[in-house]
Amino acid sequence: MSEFSHLDESGAARMVDVSEKPAAARTAVASGTLHTTAEVVALLAEGGLPKGDALATARIAGIMGAKRTPDLVPLCHPIALSGVDVEFELGHSEVHVTATARTTERTGVEMEALTAVSVAGLALHDMVKAVDAAASMDGVRLDRKEGGKAGVWTRPEGR
Amino acid sequence: MSEFSHLDESGAARMVDVSEKPAAARTAVASGTLHTTAEVVALLAEGGLPKGDALATARIAGIMGAKRTPDLVPLCHPIALSGVDVEFELGHSEVHVTATARTTERTGVEMEALTAVSVAGLALHDMVKAVDAAASMDGVRLDRKEGGKAGVWTRPEGR
Amino acid sequence: MSEFSHLDESGAARMVDVSEKPAAARTAVASGTLHTTAEVVALLAEGGLPKGDALATARIAGIMGAKRTPDLVPLCHPIALSGVDVEFELGHSEVHVTATARTTERTGVEMEALTAVSVAGLALHDMVKAVDAAASMDGVRLDRKEGGKAGVWTRPEGR
Amino acid sequence: MSEFSHLDESGAARMVDVSEKPAAARTAVASGTLHTTAEVVALLAEGGLPKGDALATARIAGIMGAKRTPDLVPLCHPIALSGVDVEFELGHSEVHVTATARTTERTGVEMEALTAVSVAGLALHDMVKAVDAAASMDGVRLDRKEGGKAGVWTRPEGR
Amino acid sequence: MSEFSHLDESGAARMVDVSEKPAAARTAVASGTLHTTAEVVALLAEGGLPKGDALATARIAGIMGAKRTPDLVPLCHPIALSGVDVEFELGHSEVHVTATARTTERTGVEMEALTAVSVAGLALHDMVKAVDAAASMDGVRLDRKEGGKAGVWTRPEGR
Amino acid sequence: MSEFSHLDESGAARMVDVSEKPAAARTAVASGTLHTTAEVVALLAEGGLPKGDALATARIAGIMGAKRTPDLVPLCHPIALSGVDVEFELGHSEVHVTATARTTERTGVEMEALTAVSVAGLALHDMVKAVDAAASMDGVRLDRKEGGKAGVWTRPEGR
Repeated sequence: MSEFSHLDESGAARMVDVSEKPAAARTAVASGTLHTTAEVVALLAEGGLPKGDALATARIAGIMGAKRTPDLVPLCHPIALSGVDVEFELGHSEVHVTATARTTERTGVEMEALTAVSVAGLALHDMVKAVDAAASMDGVRLDRKEGGKAGVWTRPEGR
Repeated sequence: MSEFSHLDESGAARMVDVSEKPAAARTAVASGTLHTTAEVVALLAEGGLPKGDALATARIAGIMGAKRTPDLVPLCHPIALSGVDVEFELGHSEVHVTATARTTERTGVEMEALTAVSVAGLALHDMVKAVDAAASMDGVRLDRKEGGKAGVWTRPEGR
Repeated sequence: MSEFSHLDESGAARMVDVSEKPAAARTAVASGTLHTTAEVVALLAEGGLPKGDALATARIAGIMGAKRTPDLVPLCHPIALSGVDVEFELGHSEVHVTATARTTERTGVEMEALTAVSVAGLALHDMVKAVDAAASMDGVRLDRKEGGKAGVWTRPEGR
Repeated sequence: MSEFSHLDESGAARMVDVSEKPAAARTAVASGTLHTTAEVVALLAEGGLPKGDALATARIAGIMGAKRTPDLVPLCHPIALSGVDVEFELGHSEVHVTATARTTERTGVEMEALTAVSVAGLALHDMVKAVDAAASMDGVRLDRKEGGKAGVWTRPEGR
Repeated sequence: MSEFSHLDESGAARMVDVSEKPAAARTAVASGTLHTTAEVVALLAEGGLPKGDALATARIAGIMGAKRTPDLVPLCHPIALSGVDVEFELGHSEVHVTATARTTERTGVEMEALTAVSVAGLALHDMVKAVDAAASMDGVRLDRKEGGKAGVWTRPEGR
Repeated sequence: MSEFSHLDESGAARMVDVSEKPAAARTAVASGTLHTTAEVVALLAEGGLPKGDALATARIAGIMGAKRTPDLVPLCHPIALSGVDVEFELGHSEVHVTATARTTERTGVEMEALTAVSVAGLALHDMVKAVDAAASMDGVRLDRKEGGKAGVWTRPEGR
């Protein structure tokens, strides 16, 4: 059975030694969806254009959140991110968030992409909560990663 | 139609002035669920006991994350949190996370509770990703809040 | 001759004890101006409207920067900010930044307002530097403060 | 007409992908001037020697501020700074601040040098504000940068 | 037998709810000693005067460290510190560090005073390590606290 | 006589330029001991097993603290840590803390290892202080470092 690499044989948490891993270009894409109301999505989008600073605020939060990943996720390595994008797609009553993170370091950027999505989601939550306190962030997950020894991984159908 | 209080009349983001709101005891409860595999849940729980530091790591991440809320969510007020709890419930192939945040300040702690859940979820994601890269965090949402002028709010059925 | 309150009689830096000061509503307004080129201002404003996320990015940076004041300015007290606004006014070849900070604590928010202006200025600098490396941030200063024992102060003419 | 590289074609903010840029030794020098009163400068300098911890406090603030650049400036890349200096020159009624930042990474350190100057300026502002509330930080700008594909840039006369 | 208040009945870590505790003036004093060599102490003190920025750097580190306490100590409450002092006393081959922290909040500032001492000690360690890699920080401990329901506590003789 | 490399010839603090130093695998081991009471150690260890989250909390604090080193120690370079371990050994009335930090950068990780020990010690202090307010952290020191031009250093006997 597979084991958690973040725990040593005694079960103690550790930041795994990646000294021996090669520096390599690595990319990760993650996404998630804030489910809210049609009214809120209408406030966010008027005629297809972002309204005021609402989406920009969440985008900046996601990008800055990606940089905070090692401060937030206890066993993540601090790395030099070489790029982050956060995109929003407005649906009928939901906002779909996609984040892409890139590095050229010894370890992957899955957590940076997931953190960008989560923090952008928190900023959206904060923006809409006075109008829709019942909004829900769903499906925060990794979609794709590539680079390093493991090569390309894409999310299997049905998960 | 309701408006976003975080944007002024021109659409510019702002940290709303809460000087006039009364200091009051306020509580918020949020939750979410990491969907993973039965194998991962078995690794997290052996005989009903937490395995090593896995859940403790995520719990600490959530509590510390709650304290970082104003650093992460751009328009949140910095407040003196008076207490935070993060609890996990292990299901068949999922981990349910619940966080409670408390303050006695001029503004609510919904975002602190939601941030605790999201960051605990990120730490779980990080812990399990080598075993289950397809894990997904779902239903990150506010369950209940009380305190201040608005009184008690509980999540309506069906949302 | 007046002395620096941030240094004790031996010249050692300290965070002054404000325990005896009353909690009170306090406001500070600060401003500054990024001098750049007419080309850059035209990129920032097209027909009077902000272009994309440029100004929103700087506004969010300023608001988040205000919250980071005690992390940046060594002898500043950590306080619960009750509100922050950052506004931009576009001139011919300059961007004027004004920030207002509010609290209800035992110490003033001059540094929070000045930090909001400086950090918004840094974000503008970062945005425009590929087009105008020679941009300059000038006149970062306090315009007005009120609240607490000292009452209202407004910047004297000619300074 | 030149465009802002920090915005994509739709105007959305992004942290630009620098994966393809070469790692190289890079240096940036920035400066600025705090205009205050002759009385304040006399307090800062007695017989040519720094008084107590005043300038040291501002110097440390500037150095630590440079390290905080990616936390403050939303679209800046987190990088491994390889050195930072902050120097002060006392004039009649002003303090001139110069900062030099160095790295061997894929992107320049202009923002780190500018942030060091701005944060040192904020710390000076904080130190002197009880004596001179009307102090002003001016001319925060890049003086010189070198390294990477762009080679050496020096500030043109008259800007 | 006494129990750890930071763990609930199941052993899970939590940030204890202090909502019911009264806001009160509270003070804590902590200290510690860096043991190094006579040569290093001579470098730090020449004729009784601090040399350059060495001690100022450590003092600022301690004061800023106190403000970072809730970011560092997982179960500490974020509080509004109302004052921090860090003092050094130079002995033959050691530097004694004393820190005083003050607040008017619902919980004590023991950890803030201990953190100021520890972080000032780390900065001293960093300053001297090229000359004395074997320096040691000892006796980091609480000396006195007062305020709140518990009243005054002073360290017992012989501990 | 040796000089502090962190100060320039005028005594001003600086972050030393390490651009010319080679990137290399580097390791540092540091340790320290929290002296408390047998009662507290019994609470931490029941039958050899960690009780609840107490030690995990301190371990996570130490690992996260190591990542915060450049934020805490003013003249430390920000680096990409490639691994951190924190271990506890329970004695009769003391807890011994050992931390190992690794990097492949241009500068050593002594301060990261020392910070991990200090912050883990602070978290233990916080955990036990309600039961033993007189606990003391002692012997925080570097035990061994290797890598880079200086090769292997081990702590001499008798220091």
